[in-house]
Formats: sequence, structure tokens, C-alpha cells
Amino acid sequence: MANNKKLVEAITSMEDDFPQWYTDVVKKAELIDYSSVRGCMILRPDGYAIWENIQKELDARFKATGVQNVYMPMFIPESLLQKEKDHVEGFAPEVAWVTHGGNEKLQERLCVRPTSETLFCDFYSNIIESYRDLPKLYNQWCSVVRWEKTTRPFLRSLEFLWQEGHTAHATAEDAKKRTIQMLNLYATFCEEILAIPMIKGKKSEKEKFAGAEETYTIEALMHDGKALQSGTSHDFGDGFAKAFNIQYTDKENKLQYVHQTSWGLSTRLIGAIIMVHGDNSGLVLPPKIAPTQVMVVPIMQKKEGVLEVANTIKEKLTSCRVKLDSTDKSPGWKFSEQEMRGIPIRIEIGPKDIEKNQCVIVRRDTGEKAIILLDEVETKVNELLETIQKDMFNKAKSHRDSHTYIAKDYDEFKEIIANKPGFVKAMWCEEEECENNIKESTGATSRCMPFEQENISDKCVCCGKEAKTMVYWGKSY
Amino acid sequence: MANNKKLVEAITSMEDDFPQWYTDVVKKAELIDYSSVRGCMILRPDGYAIWENIQKELDARFKATGVQNVYMPMFIPESLLQKEKDHVEGFAPEVAWVTHGGNEKLQERLCVRPTSETLFCDFYSNIIESYRDLPKLYNQWCSVVRWEKTTRPFLRSLEFLWQEGHTAHATAEDAKKRTIQMLNLYATFCEEILAIPMIKGKKSEKEKFAGAEETYTIEALMHDGKALQSGTSHDFGDGFAKAFNIQYTDKENKLQYVHQTSWGLSTRLIGAIIMVHGDNSGLVLPPKIAPTQVMVVPIMQKKEGVLEVANTIKEKLTSCRVKLDSTDKSPGWKFSEQEMRGIPIRIEIGPKDIEKNQCVIVRRDTGEKAIILLDEVETKVNELLETIQKDMFNKAKSHRDSHTYIAKDYDEFKEIIANKPGFVKAMWCEEEECENNIKESTGATSRCMPFEQENISDKCVCCGKEAKTMVYWGKSY
Repeated sequence: MANNKKLVEAITSMEDDFPQWYTDVVKKAELIDYSSVRGCMILRPDGYAIWENIQKELDARFKATGVQNVYMPMFIPESLLQKEKDHVEGFAPEVAWVTHGGNEKLQERLCVRPTSETLFCDFYSNIIESYRDLPKLYNQWCSVVRWEKTTRPFLRSLEFLWQEGHTAHATAEDAKKRTIQMLNLYATFCEEILAIPMIKGKKSEKEKFAGAEETYTIEALMHDGKALQSGTSHDFGDGFAKAFNIQYTDKENKLQYVHQTSWGLSTRLIGAIIMVHGDNSGLVLPPKIAPTQVMVVPIMQKKEGVLEVANTIKEKLTSCRVKLDSTDKSPGWKFSEQEMRGIPIRIEIGPKDIEKNQCVIVRRDTGEKAIILLDEVETKVNELLETIQKDMFNKAKSHRDSHTYIAKDYDEFKEIIANKPGFVKAMWCEEEECENNIKESTGATSRCMPFEQENISDKCVCCGKEAKTMVYWGKSY
Repeated sequence: MANNKKLVEAITSMEDDFPQWYTDVVKKAELIDYSSVRGCMILRPDGYAIWENIQKELDARFKATGVQNVYMPMFIPESLLQKEKDHVEGFAPEVAWVTHGGNEKLQERLCVRPTSETLFCDFYSNIIESYRDLPKLYNQWCSVVRWEKTTRPFLRSLEFLWQEGHTAHATAEDAKKRTIQMLNLYATFCEEILAIPMIKGKKSEKEKFAGAEETYTIEALMHDGKALQSGTSHDFGDGFAKAFNIQYTDKENKLQYVHQTSWGLSTRLIGAIIMVHGDNSGLVLPPKIAPTQVMVVPIMQKKEGVLEVANTIKEKLTSCRVKLDSTDKSPGWKFSEQEMRGIPIRIEIGPKDIEKNQCVIVRRDTGEKAIILLDEVETKVNELLETIQKDMFNKAKSHRDSHTYIAKDYDEFKEIIANKPGFVKAMWCEEEECENNIKESTGATSRCMPFEQENISDKCVCCGKEAKTMVYWGKSY
């Protein structure tokens, strides 16, 4: 077991230093590697396979609501980026600029897309003519670039992978409906597939997307008590349509502006999976998203028959993603690797088990072991994968709920933020001054105004004036 | 039928002007739209869906050979690009340069990847240590940028989507084997799925990839008799490994350089599908790659019962990709749209058909009509999709074979190139001078030295000296 110890010792414990634990896990679990470009990461096979599983599941859910995929260019001419005032102010400071093509200087600089609203608007202004052309429900899977000063794998990188949906509708109501529909789709996906409970709500004016009328968000709580914005859905009203002149003739033959939405979700979610479910042995992946769900580890594999039976077990598990580790490493080392990589189930099979027609089955999330008969492997493994998925969600939900606090006045608020990492629910007058005050004096930001409102008190937790909304506050990534 | 005529008239006939016909079809079939960046196209839903089908099928074939997907950054530091001499000479003149991030000038320029050999090499030099780490069989799906002066949708654009596989092996033999394996995989895929016959062979020294030891290619013949390089597979030997210092310790504990390959295939293939199968009514898509395989068009759809039966037909066709066109356009217009979009089968169903418990089934590739009973719709449609797929391949093969000529001397060669668009098979001495001569005086280039060699004559078609190889020559895209 010396080897085993070595691999675990390679990661800092999360209680000692959570950020370092995180960085250790993403590297040691071989999700990413650093590249020679500052802030750009390499997604290794396991990291990319998680993203592929996210894509496959989300893409099917998008298409079921009528969404079609397209692909827009990665470059945006500077003049196009500047067409919507708020939007350019929000993004221009953090874009990468292409100034030369081949050996020639370009007449107009091109930015590498930080997001593609402007391109979609330009496209929509060309292809939308009549009410018959609406709605347009387009999405693209691509990478975007934001020139961040400080970067962290998955959470904040110069380039990241995401999907961005962009829709155009005949009416404001249709756009609003689609904005909420996609937010709900995101939340359900995260809860069902990633086992991460989400708070759904609206962003404050200060925190909303550059150019949006309303921004909606799903917020999750990480193991260290910090919040992570996990996906956003924006209602643009007709602001972009007016800036880009996207009009259609309605049934009465009158010209109308379209109403638009956009919504995005990125590889940041992989950061959430790590920070919600991980432990001091490494990654813990929910079965539905795990690239490998079951690892079969033979014990004393040189003994006659062991590898054969191990292989039979693997072959039996046709309905899940299973691998057999038949390398010449020690079983202890193999256990430790399977744990580091977060594979939900380990099956151990050795000569003594074979004699008794059984094997040992070990849960990654709890460490629980059970002995099962070889005949029932398939049934038990499938049941256990379901159980693990459910238990992981419940555990994450309990953790979040037990780290969600209520503050009725500012002293209480400050005390909680200073000493108890988590969400704080508190009332707000909706004045930006209070939001700024809170941020300056506590470091917490307004995460969202949840759809599920509660009346905690009648007064704003900061200024004491009349409260309008209950807000989730917290420190965030 | 006035409407019908209108849509078809919108495209130039291929006999009059093949390049214009091509441009008309990609626009009218709504595969692409132009963007506000020169040479960058927008892939619209039908264009992108063809690419998704290509991806899905190819990706499964890659994975079956042990390939894993990863994602590398889109930026390459200038110093990294320069590490392999031939490679940088080949690509530097046609890359886009990022010089500013946010408001700051970068210390080192970054190029937007034109291909990712240098990034993979840098990565491999970090992660490969021992023979146990080999082979590495990585692939990525992404977009790349090449700053071309003249662009054409799908065939040559500033940015295009592709996959690039990069592998590292212990021995030269393993690398060679993988290079050929992937070329064969490409050819089989194109023949089985895209119904396009391919010539497999090796590129000449002059035509090979910048930095490769050998480049292999699959070449297809378009309807106008021009050749299209449709996919390439490169054997790098240990050239990149030496430039990037990618070494491993072998079983005898000695340091060795790895041997590498790369192979790529792009949205250019969509251009091949259009130019091999299309006709004067628009696109003709092979069933296996068509986003929609069957379009049901109701006739007199306002008559009671018509839409219901049309819908029943659609519901019955569970094993194929089927749509029902119930818009308020005329049937003639719908026919013409379905033809323009290249949907392989049209089903027409009207009140008279319903009385007789039948429907009309029309092949897009031949225009043939047949009457079938409603009970047999599913069986007949599935059979017909298979038949169309096969027939389209055979038709493309006959066209290619009947446009492949043999030239024994230079006069004959020049006469064929000048008057008969197609491939010319002719012997070559393997001197670059003859290749250059032929290109200058005829416009034809060496497409490949096919695996299936024939001994046409003992003399080089150009200089008359001793011939070493039979070459396919042709004008190309």
C-alpha cells in the first residue's frame, strides 16, 4: 500500500487549503494540463470526455425544444462589436485582437469572439423577413476567449468551451418564456445529471449581462461554501434588435422589431462537479457523467483464471461504461488511481472470491464495500449506479441547505459572512448602493433574487429601508 | 408550378457555369451564409447538421481504433510555431496574429492555430516518459484559421471546422501503420457514408505536408472533372520529436525518440458532396449523411383527412429522419424546396391516393416515381434509402472511371488535360522538375502516387527518362 499512499499524498487536503486541493485534483486526476499560453488549458481525455457527456445530454435536451445547431465565425470586426453600447463596454476590455493576417496588417481589427450576440444579430438581420421566419432557435458549441488577468482551470480561463444559444421571437412574451424555459432546462440538467442542486433566480441590475434587459442564473454552492454561477439565460427585449435593425413584417404587414434571448453554459460546470463532490482521495464523479462508471481490478492477476473472470465481469456489464485495469501495477495503486479519477464503482476480484463465486463491490462516494454473487453483478451494479447518483445529489443538497443562513440585520449578516462560509438569505431594498456597500464591507455579492421568495423581514439588511426582495448573498468564484 | 420554376431558376445551370452553380447551391440550399468577416462563413442548420452527421460517424470509427478526444488551446506562441523549420515555413505566411489582449500589447505574438502539431508536440514532451505511455492516440474537433487570399465556401475559407488526429508511437513501423490505417479509415468512410469513391495514394515530395516525412491522401473527382484532396494522413517519423525533444525510456531503459503521425479531415468534404452528387435542381444528399432523409408533402392538404394520413406516414417512419411539410406553400414550391435541399426521398399524399390506400414515392437522385401501398411505406422507404445510397456511389464511380484517362506521351497528356476534364494516369521519373514542367505548361498537378500501381509505360510522360511511378494527375480545387 506504499504506492497507494504516495498518490493520495500528492494532493493537499481540502481542509488545509481548498484552492490548492482543487488545483492538485484537476492535475492528478488528469483532467487538464497547462499549455505554453498563459491561462489556456489542455483538456485531457478524461476532462474532455466529461464535456462530451455534458454536450450529448444537453444537446438532446435543446433539440427536444426545437433548437438547431449552427456555427458562426470566431472573429468579430471591431465595428460590429461596437454596435450595441452596453455590450461593447462590457466586453471590449477583455478581448483578444487579431491585427495581422499572414504578413499584412488588417484594415480593421478583429476580436476573437468573447460571445457571439453581435454575429447572431448581424445574421438575423439578414435572414429574418416575415413572421413566418420566427422564432429562430439557434445554438452553437464552440470556444470563446476572454482576456482575464487571473485564471484557474475550468473556473476562469482565457479560452473556454461552451454552448451559446441565441433566439429571436415575434413578441416580448415569447422571448421571456424562452429565457425562463432554458434556465429551467439548465437547472434540471444540473440536478439530474451532475447531481448538483441549483438556486434559480434573477440577477441584480449590477450583475446582469452587458446589453441584457434581464439576466437569470443558476447558482450552486461549492464544498468550501463559495457560490458558483453555473449558467445564465438573458432576455434582451428588443435592445439588440434596434441596434442591429432586426425587423419582420407581422401578419398585418407592419414592421416590428424581434425580441431576443441568449443562454450559455460552459466547461466551468466541470469545476462545479469537482468542488461539489470531490474529497481528499480526489475526484468523485456522478455516474451519469462519469466517462468510466466501473473499474474492474483483478487481485493476484497472475493466478490462473483471475484475468479471465475479471474480463467476464467486464463483458457482462453491457449497459454501463466499464473498464478493466490489467496493467502490471499493484492493486493498491490501481485502487488509488480509480479513486483519484472519481470512477463511481470499483469491482475487486481475486482467487478467493472466484472460489466463492463472488466479488467485492466498492462505492467511490462513501467507500462502502459489499460482497455480491457473480451472477448478480449486472443487476447490482446498475442499481448501485442509480443509488450513488441519488445519494450524491442528496448529500450535496444537505450540504448546501446546512450552509444556507438567514440574516435579519447587518451585524448578523457580517458575522455570518465572516465566520460561516455559505449562502446568506437576506432582504434588499433593490438600491445598488446597498449592494456596493455589502460587497465592499463583506466581500459578498448578490448571487440572485430567487424565484422562490421568502419574506424574512420588511427591511433591507443593509440600509434598513423598505425591503423589496429576498436575495441570496455569498462569496463567489 | 410557377413557383417551382422560380426556385430552380434561381440557380445557374452547372453546364453553363459550374463555379456559379456551386455558389448558388450552397446559398439556396441554405447550407451557409456569408458573414461580415471576409472569407468566414456561417454554417446554417442544414450545413451544420451534415457536419454533425460526419462527426458522429467518424468519431465512432476513430474511437473503435482506440483514439481519445482532447482539446488544445486555439493560440500558439510564435516561438513554439518556429520550433520545426519546415513546418513554420509552410504555415507562417498564412496565419492570423493576435497582438493585443484587452488593452495591452502582448510580449509575444500568438497565432490562431492553422493546425496543432506544435501544441501536441509540446504536450507530448511533457506527458510521455516511458514505453508504458505509448502509443498516445489523440484527436480533436475544432476550427482552424488559414489566411487565404481567395476563398470559396467549404473548399477554402479563412476559418474551417475539422478534426485533427495526432499520435505518438514507440517505433517507426507503428507510426507508419497508423498513418495508413487512418487513410484507409477515411477512404472507407467516404465511400460508405458519403458515396464518394476515393483514390488512395502518396503525395509527391513537392505536395507533402510541411514537416512530414510522407503524406498520404484520398483524392476524389468532382462532377466538373476537377480533383479534390479530401483528407490527408501524415507520417512524421521522428522529425518533430527531435525538434520538440519528445523522448521515452524503452524496456531496456534507453532513451528513444517517439515517432508521430497526424491526420485531418474537414468541412471541405461537404463541398465534395455537393460537387459529386448535385444537379441542376440543387443538392443531392446521400441518405446516410442527409439531415432529413424523407420529406412528406401533403397534396390538397386542406381536404379533410389529408394532413392526418400524412402525419401517420411520418409517424410510421421511426427508423429514419423524416419531416412533414405542412406549411401553407404550394405543393410545387414544396417539391422544389425538397429538391433544392437534396432530401433523398419525397412522399406525396393526396385525397385520391388516400382513397386507394397508397402514396407516391419519389427519388431525389433519379427523379423516378413509384406508387406504393400505405401498409408497405416503412419497408419500401428503408429499402429505397439503401438503394439510393448504393446507386449514388455507383454513379459517382462510373463518372470518375469514365473521366480517368491514360497518357503515354506528353502530347497525349497535354491534349487530354486541355480537352477532357478528369484524372490522367501517367508515368513519372520522380524528379520535381517534371512535376513543375507539367504544372506550368498544363495547369495539372500530381494528385497522388496511388497504392494500386499500373505499369503504363517505362518512360516518364514528361522527360522520357526512366519512369519510377504511376501518378494520377489533374487540375484541382
